[in-house]
Amino acid sequence: MGSIFGRFFRVSTFGESHGSAMGVVVDGVPAGLPLDADRIQKDLEKRRPGTSDFVSKRQETDQVEVLSGLAQGKTLGTPIALVVRNRDARPDDYQELTEIFRPGHADYTYFHKYGVTPQPGGGRSSGRETVARVAAGAVARALLKTVNVSIRAYTVRIGTVSVKLVDTAFAERDPLRCSDPEAAEAMADEVRAAQADNDSVGGIVELAARGVPVGWGDPVFDKLDAVMGGAMLFIGGVKAVEVGDGFAVAERRGSQNNDQMVGEGFLSNHAGGILGGISTGQTILLRIAVKPTPSIALEQQTMDIQGRQRTVEIKGRHDPCLCPRVAPVAEAMAALVLADAWLDQRARQRGNQ
Amino acid sequence: MGSIFGRFFRVSTFGESHGSAMGVVVDGVPAGLPLDADRIQKDLEKRRPGTSDFVSKRQETDQVEVLSGLAQGKTLGTPIALVVRNRDARPDDYQELTEIFRPGHADYTYFHKYGVTPQPGGGRSSGRETVARVAAGAVARALLKTVNVSIRAYTVRIGTVSVKLVDTAFAERDPLRCSDPEAAEAMADEVRAAQADNDSVGGIVELAARGVPVGWGDPVFDKLDAVMGGAMLFIGGVKAVEVGDGFAVAERRGSQNNDQMVGEGFLSNHAGGILGGISTGQTILLRIAVKPTPSIALEQQTMDIQGRQRTVEIKGRHDPCLCPRVAPVAEAMAALVLADAWLDQRARQRGNQ
Amino acid sequence: MGSIFGRFFRVSTFGESHGSAMGVVVDGVPAGLPLDADRIQKDLEKRRPGTSDFVSKRQETDQVEVLSGLAQGKTLGTPIALVVRNRDARPDDYQELTEIFRPGHADYTYFHKYGVTPQPGGGRSSGRETVARVAAGAVARALLKTVNVSIRAYTVRIGTVSVKLVDTAFAERDPLRCSDPEAAEAMADEVRAAQADNDSVGGIVELAARGVPVGWGDPVFDKLDAVMGGAMLFIGGVKAVEVGDGFAVAERRGSQNNDQMVGEGFLSNHAGGILGGISTGQTILLRIAVKPTPSIALEQQTMDIQGRQRTVEIKGRHDPCLCPRVAPVAEAMAALVLADAWLDQRARQRGNQ
Amino acid sequence: MGSIFGRFFRVSTFGESHGSAMGVVVDGVPAGLPLDADRIQKDLEKRRPGTSDFVSKRQETDQVEVLSGLAQGKTLGTPIALVVRNRDARPDDYQELTEIFRPGHADYTYFHKYGVTPQPGGGRSSGRETVARVAAGAVARALLKTVNVSIRAYTVRIGTVSVKLVDTAFAERDPLRCSDPEAAEAMADEVRAAQADNDSVGGIVELAARGVPVGWGDPVFDKLDAVMGGAMLFIGGVKAVEVGDGFAVAERRGSQNNDQMVGEGFLSNHAGGILGGISTGQTILLRIAVKPTPSIALEQQTMDIQGRQRTVEIKGRHDPCLCPRVAPVAEAMAALVLADAWLDQRARQRGNQ
Repeated sequence: MGSIFGRFFRVSTFGESHGSAMGVVVDGVPAGLPLDADRIQKDLEKRRPGTSDFVSKRQETDQVEVLSGLAQGKTLGTPIALVVRNRDARPDDYQELTEIFRPGHADYTYFHKYGVTPQPGGGRSSGRETVARVAAGAVARALLKTVNVSIRAYTVRIGTVSVKLVDTAFAERDPLRCSDPEAAEAMADEVRAAQADNDSVGGIVELAARGVPVGWGDPVFDKLDAVMGGAMLFIGGVKAVEVGDGFAVAERRGSQNNDQMVGEGFLSNHAGGILGGISTGQTILLRIAVKPTPSIALEQQTMDIQGRQRTVEIKGRHDPCLCPRVAPVAEAMAALVLADAWLDQRARQRGNQ
Repeated sequence: MGSIFGRFFRVSTFGESHGSAMGVVVDGVPAGLPLDADRIQKDLEKRRPGTSDFVSKRQETDQVEVLSGLAQGKTLGTPIALVVRNRDARPDDYQELTEIFRPGHADYTYFHKYGVTPQPGGGRSSGRETVARVAAGAVARALLKTVNVSIRAYTVRIGTVSVKLVDTAFAERDPLRCSDPEAAEAMADEVRAAQADNDSVGGIVELAARGVPVGWGDPVFDKLDAVMGGAMLFIGGVKAVEVGDGFAVAERRGSQNNDQMVGEGFLSNHAGGILGGISTGQTILLRIAVKPTPSIALEQQTMDIQGRQRTVEIKGRHDPCLCPRVAPVAEAMAALVLADAWLDQRARQRGNQ
Repeated sequence: MGSIFGRFFRVSTFGESHGSAMGVVVDGVPAGLPLDADRIQKDLEKRRPGTSDFVSKRQETDQVEVLSGLAQGKTLGTPIALVVRNRDARPDDYQELTEIFRPGHADYTYFHKYGVTPQPGGGRSSGRETVARVAAGAVARALLKTVNVSIRAYTVRIGTVSVKLVDTAFAERDPLRCSDPEAAEAMADEVRAAQADNDSVGGIVELAARGVPVGWGDPVFDKLDAVMGGAMLFIGGVKAVEVGDGFAVAERRGSQNNDQMVGEGFLSNHAGGILGGISTGQTILLRIAVKPTPSIALEQQTMDIQGRQRTVEIKGRHDPCLCPRVAPVAEAMAALVLADAWLDQRARQRGNQ
Repeated sequence: MGSIFGRFFRVSTFGESHGSAMGVVVDGVPAGLPLDADRIQKDLEKRRPGTSDFVSKRQETDQVEVLSGLAQGKTLGTPIALVVRNRDARPDDYQELTEIFRPGHADYTYFHKYGVTPQPGGGRSSGRETVARVAAGAVARALLKTVNVSIRAYTVRIGTVSVKLVDTAFAERDPLRCSDPEAAEAMADEVRAAQADNDSVGGIVELAARGVPVGWGDPVFDKLDAVMGGAMLFIGGVKAVEVGDGFAVAERRGSQNNDQMVGEGFLSNHAGGILGGISTGQTILLRIAVKPTPSIALEQQTMDIQGRQRTVEIKGRHDPCLCPRVAPVAEAMAALVLADAWLDQRARQRGNQ
């Protein structure tokens, strides 16, 4: 199972949802970066369950333990191993479910691939796995901070409600990570309505990376937009990704879509801050489609591992909308990609010879 | 510059648009596969320029030369090196342009990254680079053919015209790769209208991979949809990718979006043939947004490498719509990803121990 | 810092000698292999310090904790995370030493590379790091066991004393891992003599891998002997490696050195079980040179991090001869390489198409 | 077949000995390095066959063709593709041999691995494959030259004749690459004697890399000595490698083997310029054992692919001693490793943050 990501800045994640712990080893971090456990803990708080009505009631403190790589508030240049114990694992909640393929989940494919009884709560394909990515992302951010790159992800749509503006400070406080104070209540209603129906609802998350200078990324197979876009798709529940104007370009003319330049600056940013796979120095903009949580309490038709026809109603503690959980993970994945791109750029940039 | 792709089935591409040749080395191919130069040549014909009014008039025969890895119609298990000479390179067409950043192109970012004068026609960021990928894709298809996996990409939208049905046999013959005989003429008009205005137009390409059995791909960082989606974004001009229903999931409820099962089969395929990063056995479906060709003859504002304000009208031999050129490249990239996923599956599948 | 090893079967190690824990994540293990914590613990016992007069007195129980990847005595196909706490870390023993470069150690190079004060006991370059490799090696052995591959390493020389025969069962019990009952006492004397002089002594370890079928490995950059040999050099203190007859080939004629065949069998095994980088089906034989432990209590001249001339006498708890500690690590490294080679072989072998 | 080497400076080689061409794609080279085809050609001359009585009579001009990556005497930052045509391929010389396993060659293992009839002259396991490595090495040297790193390999032993001193300028001119003018004639006699007996003879090649500053390499899995040593073992016919004093450490005491320091300098270089996997700033020294050429005209016993007992006398155009052919390949492999290590160092070094 491929659980290693990156080339220069590499993360190796582990842990099953209802096993004893989740964690990650971050390899390739330069020595001497300011970083401590508190800084990592702060990022973990952002994706922690149990913090509002809109996210899973699973009670996890998500305390990170640093096993290696940091001393006296600095990175040592050695691998940084981070572990988060599963405190509120309740494998028994899933006892009945381990033999039934939950619709919209990996249970069916997982069982046929690995040939072992699926682990409670999806094992490795659970969203809980992302706690390790967020922890690793905090390390990547520490590196990016030294060059003033910042990354923000926020909800721009849930169900039929879209935002009209982006206020990232507001989004940080909003339980759904909604970026528009005016739209926040309508979004919350959309989620509550789904909850009331024992159902869930999808949405769209946008990500902005600011401060990336011109020149990161590559024109062919390490295109920055492709690596970032692929990284978004590595997040469970994400079914689509747009760079810049995305699908809107399909009906455009070239004259409308090209970003012309005057002075040293671009007149527009349809491209989303990346041209030919290389950053332009503008804000990098991505949008991702987040599917409605597949775990719902409504009755659904399915099969079990013996191939028998079954129905299932999934109780348990599930997020009615994944957007607020996906946003910090998207930030983390973007940070991993950008940290990697920067190390690559350091290795090969001219002027360094 | 990262020009190597894949983990077990690896391709290493090379060549600048107006240099002497394009090519690829394919590493990791099992021995004994039926394959010869003709088979590769046939795939190259599909993306060749100069074949209709809707694609670049550049006259390239795109004859592939096999330098290694094949003998007597079979793979040897050794690296397969494929070279296509640039016959109709016209670097002089670009003489004036090498110092001007063409809007919507990689010129600006490329220059700032590498610090060398951009090569004629974009050098390595030209669409011509994809000839190497299509050649490599033919090798991947030879491997996939042994397990009856087939891949088709076709145009489903250009500008404001969308298809209503998918007829892949028709698409193979249509100059725009339009999948719907009823929509083909309207699409052609859309492109001609853009051409008449010295402009270009965008569109959407869909890709279907049939025959992939349940179990390919991985739940975390080697998710099959993420790797395929990332691979699509590695194609120049592609600004977005959807898996299955893609962005449509944003406004759905879980009960609408989950693919329920009866008997051994799924009742729907909203997921696009992949659940939790692993293939379900259904058809894998992706859609990609293709931007309008940035090279247009209309006057545009830009800069040159000395930082002076300039205007530019790009003459030359350019595709008015990239969709028919992108489709075979999308097929090739999908084939590379699936060949890699299959080798991985062979390595680790149960029953093989 | 590159702490990731392997292509299909990948390990990612972490931990500093006097930090809180050592550990490893093993990625790419097939599902369904019989394996439990006890099996891993047993391998760890073999390299554990504090078990005889000839190895470091550091008291480590080296209890492994399995954080993920195993359930009910089987692998899940997910990453296997293994952690060993440092119980007897005594960073204070090294307080004086952290500013002095110990001769023969990585202190000088480490300091100049990372620019951070060296960690107590060498941090990441300590031999303690190998506990993680041995744990990972136990996982690799579980995979190799399914195809009856076994690996043994044993001491064949210490100082001026060489063995005359190989009795691996005896070596398992001998505190110096000496393979020859007749030579064991002389070897022990050699080590005691060095200890009595406050000095240390070098030696040679041999490794035999039995049961590898013909066909593993590759002719160019994944040559099995080269990858195994390189893996031996990844062990601290190893300064040379021989495959088969090794340096003895320098004075041979081709007619003496070639392994001729009769029937289906080879008449000799000068090559060490590998021809052209691919296993022959014979026993794979390697020999490695192990340097005398650099930590000695004799006075030595050196520098400190301020560049001042210093002398140093290294007290502490050090192995007088590294051979018995290196042998289990060599077995683990060989197991990692062979597990990887086997997965590669499964992916690409003919007959599987 | 793994034919890709390196992490950041990556080479992908191809070609069979009696196929149409050999070649390599070099990926990851920074832009703007001074380099042209002549510089590469010059390195190829050093390993070219047909240049003295002591090397194969195969007449190859080994003219390199640059297909991409260079323009106006500088690297473009794009992949550099280099092709050398096989002009004097004589597959018919091997017609009889393709069904007989030549002793000491990869024929037997290759056939069992790939299941295809072995290619004439060993196909991919022929020494001819190394022409691609030498071409790639020339690119690596261009990068290393910017930091004044130079690499020399020379013969220090053939059969029973050893050198007493190292004169690299002399070695460059000597047909056997012998480093000692006094020993050259005796070495030549040793080779002539083997030739006269229709036999071949082994030897030892030493490699010195000068100018590598302190700090390259890593303490765990990217140890510079291990990666360099492994790279040496990737050369066909190399059966052993020593770093620094190598096997001599086995009988040493720590007090004899440690390199003590005074002032800012080391008093000795037993370690061979690398401590804890990281360069010390001293000369890096390796020695490799080269086996006698397995192709000899004496009668030998063997098998054919049908499993029948056979005898074989290998005529053809073979090197009586591989040392002078191995030396330039060793230089090339060392250059590839050091170029890679330097890019890694640039990515992660302190002061660059």
